[in-house]
Formats: sequence, C-alpha cells, structure tokens
Amino acid sequence: MDRPVPTITTGPLPSSRKVYLAGEVHDIRVPLREITVSGGEAPMTVYDSSGPYTDPGARIDIAEGLADVRGDWLERRGDVAPYEGRSVTSADNGFAEGARLTPAFPRARRPLRAVGGRAITQLAFARAGIVTPEMDFVAIRENEGRKAAAARDGEAFGAEMPDLVTPEFVRDEIAAGRGIIPANVNHRELEPMIIGRNFLVKINANIGNSAVTSSMEEEVEKMVWAIRWGADTVMDLSTGRNIHNIRDWILRNAPVPIGTVPLYQALEKVGGIAEDLTWEVYRDTLIEQAEQGVDYFTIHAGVRLHMIPMTVDRVTGIVSRGGSIMAKWCLHHHRESFLYEHFEEICDICRAYDISFSLGDGLRPGSIADANDAAQFAELETLGELTKIAWGKDCQVMIEGPGHVPMHKIKANMDKQLAHCHEAPFYTLGPLTTDIAPGYDHITSAIGAAMIGWFGTAMLCYVTPKEHLGLPDRDDVKTGVITYKLAAHAADLAKGHPGAQRRDDALSRARFEFRWEDQFNLGLDPDTARAMHDETLPKEAHKVA
Amino acid sequence: MDRPVPTITTGPLPSSRKVYLAGEVHDIRVPLREITVSGGEAPMTVYDSSGPYTDPGARIDIAEGLADVRGDWLERRGDVAPYEGRSVTSADNGFAEGARLTPAFPRARRPLRAVGGRAITQLAFARAGIVTPEMDFVAIRENEGRKAAAARDGEAFGAEMPDLVTPEFVRDEIAAGRGIIPANVNHRELEPMIIGRNFLVKINANIGNSAVTSSMEEEVEKMVWAIRWGADTVMDLSTGRNIHNIRDWILRNAPVPIGTVPLYQALEKVGGIAEDLTWEVYRDTLIEQAEQGVDYFTIHAGVRLHMIPMTVDRVTGIVSRGGSIMAKWCLHHHRESFLYEHFEEICDICRAYDISFSLGDGLRPGSIADANDAAQFAELETLGELTKIAWGKDCQVMIEGPGHVPMHKIKANMDKQLAHCHEAPFYTLGPLTTDIAPGYDHITSAIGAAMIGWFGTAMLCYVTPKEHLGLPDRDDVKTGVITYKLAAHAADLAKGHPGAQRRDDALSRARFEFRWEDQFNLGLDPDTARAMHDETLPKEAHKVA
Repeated sequence: MDRPVPTITTGPLPSSRKVYLAGEVHDIRVPLREITVSGGEAPMTVYDSSGPYTDPGARIDIAEGLADVRGDWLERRGDVAPYEGRSVTSADNGFAEGARLTPAFPRARRPLRAVGGRAITQLAFARAGIVTPEMDFVAIRENEGRKAAAARDGEAFGAEMPDLVTPEFVRDEIAAGRGIIPANVNHRELEPMIIGRNFLVKINANIGNSAVTSSMEEEVEKMVWAIRWGADTVMDLSTGRNIHNIRDWILRNAPVPIGTVPLYQALEKVGGIAEDLTWEVYRDTLIEQAEQGVDYFTIHAGVRLHMIPMTVDRVTGIVSRGGSIMAKWCLHHHRESFLYEHFEEICDICRAYDISFSLGDGLRPGSIADANDAAQFAELETLGELTKIAWGKDCQVMIEGPGHVPMHKIKANMDKQLAHCHEAPFYTLGPLTTDIAPGYDHITSAIGAAMIGWFGTAMLCYVTPKEHLGLPDRDDVKTGVITYKLAAHAADLAKGHPGAQRRDDALSRARFEFRWEDQFNLGLDPDTARAMHDETLPKEAHKVA
Repeated sequence: MDRPVPTITTGPLPSSRKVYLAGEVHDIRVPLREITVSGGEAPMTVYDSSGPYTDPGARIDIAEGLADVRGDWLERRGDVAPYEGRSVTSADNGFAEGARLTPAFPRARRPLRAVGGRAITQLAFARAGIVTPEMDFVAIRENEGRKAAAARDGEAFGAEMPDLVTPEFVRDEIAAGRGIIPANVNHRELEPMIIGRNFLVKINANIGNSAVTSSMEEEVEKMVWAIRWGADTVMDLSTGRNIHNIRDWILRNAPVPIGTVPLYQALEKVGGIAEDLTWEVYRDTLIEQAEQGVDYFTIHAGVRLHMIPMTVDRVTGIVSRGGSIMAKWCLHHHRESFLYEHFEEICDICRAYDISFSLGDGLRPGSIADANDAAQFAELETLGELTKIAWGKDCQVMIEGPGHVPMHKIKANMDKQLAHCHEAPFYTLGPLTTDIAPGYDHITSAIGAAMIGWFGTAMLCYVTPKEHLGLPDRDDVKTGVITYKLAAHAADLAKGHPGAQRRDDALSRARFEFRWEDQFNLGLDPDTARAMHDETLPKEAHKVA
C-alpha cells in the first residue's frame, strides 16, 4: 500500500486512565475510565465507549484490527461454525476498480454462523436462562464501578432500574425483549453494550463516506473519533464506491456495535433505481453484511402499501431515505414491499448471525407539521406486529422513532411505542422540537432527545449542526456526540438512574472550590472547557486557585 | 474625542425589510420584520427586537442616540415632569479619571419622574382602565402582522393566549399582574415589549464590560449585536470603572428594556466590601440608575436572615452574586437586609419612574444537587410576599428563577412560582439540566429553558457556551441568543401559541422543495445556515435546485 500512515486518534482523555474489571460469571475484562480528581476526592469511574484507542497499553494498527475479544466466548459456546462465505463481487464495492478501489482489509477470516439452525441469539440464551459473557460484560459496564447503591431520585415513567445491575438482571431484560445486545457473531472485536430503558441511555453517531475523498483511514478515524467522545454505537451510512471494503475496515477496528441500512447498498447494486430492487439483491446484501459482522440492520419493513397515501397531504411527505425508496417501489409495483413479504426470511438470516433489528420508521415526520400523524402511527403499529414475529424467531429488536416533534407531542410517541411495540427498546432521531433553526439542529433536537430519553427511549441517534445542510466534519461530529451525551445524561438524571448524579456532584464540588482542572476533567469535553477558560483567564495559577 | 469611529452592526438581515404597522388606539409605529420568500409564497412577518439598526432608512449615530420615541407619549400623559437630577460623582464611575474615564454621553437630558406622587406605572394605568401607547405597541407587536387566528394545538398548562392580542387584553393582563412592560419614563428610546405567560416567550441577554478593554462603542455594539439576533431585553452587569457613563451610552442607544443589578454598583461605591454597604449608598444608586432610564432592577430582597443557614449543607452554597453579597451582609450585621427592610421605599422609587422589579433569587441552586431545596423555596415564598407589597404600590413585578434543575424537578418550580407569586411573570436562568458539560451549558440549559418556557415561564435568561468558564465573546453571545430563541420558540409551539407554527411550516415547505435560500432566510441565523451549506455544496446552482 502506498497510502500514508493512518492517523488514528489514540491516547487517554485528560487525567484519565483505563481500568479493567473482571467478570462475575465469565473470564472477561470490562473496560471503564477512571478520572483522577484532586482535593482529596476519590477518582470518578465512568462508562467508557472508546475502546482500546484510549489505552496506552494497547497496540493500535488498523491493518491488524482490534483484538479478537469474543472468539473464545463463541468457541466455548460451540454453536457457531466457520464456513466458506459469499465471494466479494465488484458490485459490492460500487464497481470501483484499480486505483479507485479501496484495498480489502488485509486479514480475511471465514465467517461464522449458527450450526444446524441452532438459536444463538442473546435473546435465545436469555430465554434459556443462560448468562452469556456478553451479558456479564454489560452488567459490569452499566454499574460504572459502583459497588453500592447511590442516592437516587427521579420520575422513571415505569422504567425499573435496579440499584446495581446484575448479569441475571441483564438476562431477564433481554428475555423480556426490553433490552438488546447488538452483537453479530462475526463482530468479534466488539465490547458488548446493552440498549434498553432500564439501563443507561445510549447514543448513536452516524458516519458515512464522502463522495469526494474517503480513504479507509479516514473512515476508521471517523468511528474512533465518535466513540472517543462517547458514541455507544455507530451507523455506517456510506453509499457509492468501496462501501464493502470500507465497512470491513470499520468493523475490524470497531469496539462498538456497527449498524447499517442494507437497503442503501442494495440500491447501489441496481444502479440507484428503486423500482429495480428485488428480494434477491436485498437478500444477498443482508448475507454480505452479516458475514462482515454488522451488528444491527435498519429495516423499513413497516412501510405498507396502504399507508403511503396517508402521506400525501403532509408538509414534508416522506423524508426517511429508506422509507421513500420503499414507497417508490411499492407504488411502482403496486404491492407490499419485499421487506414486509419476506420478513420471516429476514429473521432467519438475522437469527443465524445474531443481528439485531432496528425496525425503521420510514414514515417518520420530517417537520413539526407532520408530527404524530396517521401515517406515522400506522407504521408504528406495524412495527409492533413485526416485533412479535422477530421475537418468535429469537431475534433481538429495537424500534426507530422520529424525527420532528414539538414538545407537547413527544410523550405520546413514547407511550404509543411502549403500548404497540411491547416494550422493545425505542431508538429515536432527536426529535427536533422546532424547524426554524437550521445550523442549530443539534440543539433543537437535544431538547427533544433529553425529554424522550427521560420518558423511556433507550438510544438517541445524534444530530449534528450540519443536519439538513451538508456533511458533518470532524468538529460537527464531536459537537453532535457531546450534545447527545449531555442529553442522555440529563435523561438518566431525570429518570433517577442510580449513580448518574455522582458525576454532577463531583463536578459541582470542584466548581464550588475553584478546582479548575477537576472541573475540566470531570466534564464531557475537557479540551473545550479548558480552552474556553484559558481564553479569558490564561494564567496557570488561576486554574488551581 | 480621539477614539476610532464606532463600528456598530447595521443593515437588515438577509432577504428582510423593516415594516411598520400603525397603532390601533394611538399614533404609533410598530416595527416588524418581513422576510421575502420565493416559490410563490407570501412574505413571512416576524417579531423584531433589533430596533432601528436593521432599518436602512434610520440614521445611526451612537453619540446622538436613538430617536426619542416615547417623549410625546409621556408629555401627552402629563403626569411626569423633568427635574434637576442627581449630580454624577466620581464614585459612580468607579473613580475613573483622565484618560481612563469613558466620556459622558454628549446629550444630557433632565430626568423625568412622576409629579405629586401620581401613579404613572403601566400597572396603575391598566388598573385605571387606560390603554397606554406602550400597551397598544406591544399588542400589535405580539401578533407579528397576523390579522386572523392560525391553526393552533398545544398544552398550555393554564396559560390563556388569545387568537389575537388586543390592546385591551394587554391592559387586562398587566392589571392582573400577569404581564409587565418594563419601561422607565427616562428610557424614551424604548420600543416597548411585554413579558408574561400569555404572550410570546421572551429572552434576555447579559452583557457587561470587560476589566481589560471596554470602550463605549464596544459596549453599545454588544447590545446591538444581541438584539440583532433576537434578545428581547438586555441586562448590563458591568462592574468596576466607568459603569455610569457606559450605562448612559447603552441606554441612549437601546430600543430594548435594559435591566441591572444595582447592588453591583453599590458594592463598587463601598470599595467592594459587602459589610460596608448601607441603605443610603444603595438608595443613591437606585436614584442614579432610575434617572438614567434603567427599565428593571434585579433586587435580592428575598434573602432573609433565617434562610442563610439552610444553605450550609448545599454542594454549591450560594452562587448568586447578589445573594452571596446580601448573605454576607446579613450574617455580619446579624439583621435582615436593608433590601428587605426598606422594600417599601424601594417601591416608592420604582413607582416614581415606572421601573419594574425583577425579584432576584439570591438562593437559587448552583448545582443539580441543590435544586428545589428548602432555601430556594423559602425565598420563593418571600418573593411572593414582596410581590404583593410592590403591587400595592402600583409597581410591576417579575420573579427570577433557577438555575440548575434536573428535568424531573423543573415543573415544580413553575407550579410553586405560580402559586406563591400570584402569577407574576417568571424569569429563569436556564435551568441547566446537568452539571457535567462545561463548554456546552448553553445546551444543557436550553433543554431546561424550553421546558420551563413551555410550562409558563415568560422570559428566559440566556446562557452562553462560556458559562462557568469565562467572559463570552461576540460569537458566544450570538450562540447564546440563537440557542435561547430556538428554546423560546419551541416553548411557544408546545404551548400552542397561535401563529408560532407559521414559520416552522414555511421553512419546512422550503426544505421539502429544496428552496435553499428560503430555508436559510426563514431560519433564526441565515448566515450560519448558508455558510454550513456552502462548505460542502458551494455551487450557487445547488441553492435554488
């Protein structure tokens, strides 16, 4: 390779070190971040989504990929086996060739899948009463190093968070469908995490290649940058050339679950003509991504033919890309979508690799005017029906939600989702609470995200300042992630998540005692806080005064 | 003067022009902003706080000040008269001398005050059934050019916003104490505005001199910049040298109400020693600022001696500057504060000039841990008692609120404020919904601000990204103002304010039809939206596609 040496951001956050806790049930190492605090205070241990990149002891080489954390776990389970996977075709990479072709990830590995139709999903294990290493891992992770209950107060709207999370609690939540651990058996580099309303509120960051210039280093760095600041999962929304190979580079270097919208790649394979999509092309794309290790698929199977006319009088029609592709297909062929008709077969694929469903809201509102309308809620009911089907196949499921919703209509979204989707985790985009602030939609949506997180949404998909305007750059990604981390934390506080207030209190004590360094380091973004402070009070002495 | 030519930001916002509507009752001109929209759509008329600075037809010379809008109104009323005001002392300007002394505003005017103890406040007029030009002005302003009701939907929590605001409705709201028009008779340049929960939610921006370099041009420009982006009132929190003269420059050039915390200047006059404060020094400062035209005073009269021990076990003690000054005074002298003891005399002063009270929350929580505690709510009850006293003197009153409050404790603040303070308008700082994001407190607080605005808070005091860290610069002020404008608008939408959704809908239609220029221009910050869009899609053709 004649490409420049990858420039991946590594190293700990200020005044922080990586600590590893042992499993309770299994032989595992669970990473957390410990922030050193002055003033005679104990260190603050916090959740850490950043993976080995912030561990100075880890050797990072993106051409090697991260260590195979889960290989042992899977081998010991003995219910998956390697097989000769699907061959990569030129179409998989958008027909990129020669110098325009991003090199394949150097280390090939035969894909794993369930043997003999065995149920190998976390849901199947949970139902069988088994605590997997993944469950053990997330249980320890969720406690952030706490060994005892902390003072708590909040209004949880029916969520039931225990004082301390046990592996058995995780198992029970997954068995009930209220929690999911997106963990494809082919994503062996994964540090498992859980999404559910009885756990810490999570956030997702979207990345995607730019049509102009994207190398695999750049794409890996986007992911590393997003998780450094707190993204719990990353969706790769790339389109066009090289997406197969770039996805491989991302997955082999990703300690967080990676989600995709397989429809985007399928559309590329038929030259961008929605009407030309077929179940066969789509199915082939699912297998392709399953073998690579994608952890969750957004699937817009809830867009049904009879719902499409309900969007005609909307101000902003259908704004979901997947939704509008499927609506076009349905109208052209005048039949239900292949996603809906083949949903059970999709479940069978997801079941064989343990890929979680993120049932897409193809009819989500794209404006305040369209919030909570008949089309949106009709689709939500269908997503509830599909949830039951997927659960019947032992598949893990979460449900995607809006979008653009004024504050007084947010709670109804949560209430209906809980009722129609049987408490499967809710995963929302914002929602934006007004349409009049392009350039500030990370903020218009953080308001809605904090509120819906409080009401019970398990994961918040971030919005960057560039939403509606252009492609986010590095600064935008960081701003989006930090904004959503603070919204998720505000939700945890309001829900009365045990232990959430520890960090607020430690930072407030530092603030009251003018321990500036502690105030920076305990915050979500120490670098920005320090830089802002130094602009007007640059003297070192001021910081410890 | 050998200072450089003032550089004040003037000129209209993109695609906008100033329009003036006539009064319904009086001979007045009420400014609004009309945004031209393409695509065959009618222009969008919106509230305009920016004053003559955005009117290309207005001649701006800060050494002249703005036109005397209210002089005629006051003269016709015939119940105020000019008198020989207090002489400016060296102490008023923090003992600045020679080259360090900011020049006095060139045009001196004798101050006005009520003659013969007449009641000249907007509250007194409202109670007498009189519709003043100020009431007429705000009624027209609030309708934003609408002549008919618009579709509305929302949850108003007891607020009762009419389809169209009439001058009589304004009068009735003021008479009931639910609305205030801060309008000192000596602020004759003012374009009146109203604060109350049955009106559009307003925002305040704080400015203040920097200890290092502040000229009068810079201070005037800070105010002009803040109102350009939507600040409805501006608080001048300057300290130290030259504050008397700089305040004069600001007031003579301010079309929005100016608020202050007179205690800050009084403290300067006694060399910064809280214990040395006296009623006489404080009273003299009130008169000084009253004669200059300050429209509302933050007065921390609710901090009572017995409440101070309630703060001992707090994580962040007393964080309000005014609160901690008064607590120190009370403890030292072991008696109730002179603000509390002389409250009726303070009312007499405010009454003579029609200065509105902003009853300060000196014991507001400075952290999530301290939210909604006994000290905070004890003070709130006292503020309710003081409200009744002020109303008894015909004075207009609003109540300041927190601060730092997690989401689940926000509504209790509004409910208690309504109950204890008899529906006097609530004016809150944020509240911040978590303490862990220094550098992003405009966002942690926008979440709380939008929610409490929805619940009924009438005015939101902005927070900038530099909160807790340093002095906001020009970019921070703009970010803070836009963030709070969008929060206030989200609140208006959720309350079901008639007409609020017009702008969201117009922008969403533009978005759906790819009318990029309209999307920028209808937003709160066209410049930033356009710049972000042009970063990735710089071609002119893309913008009208």
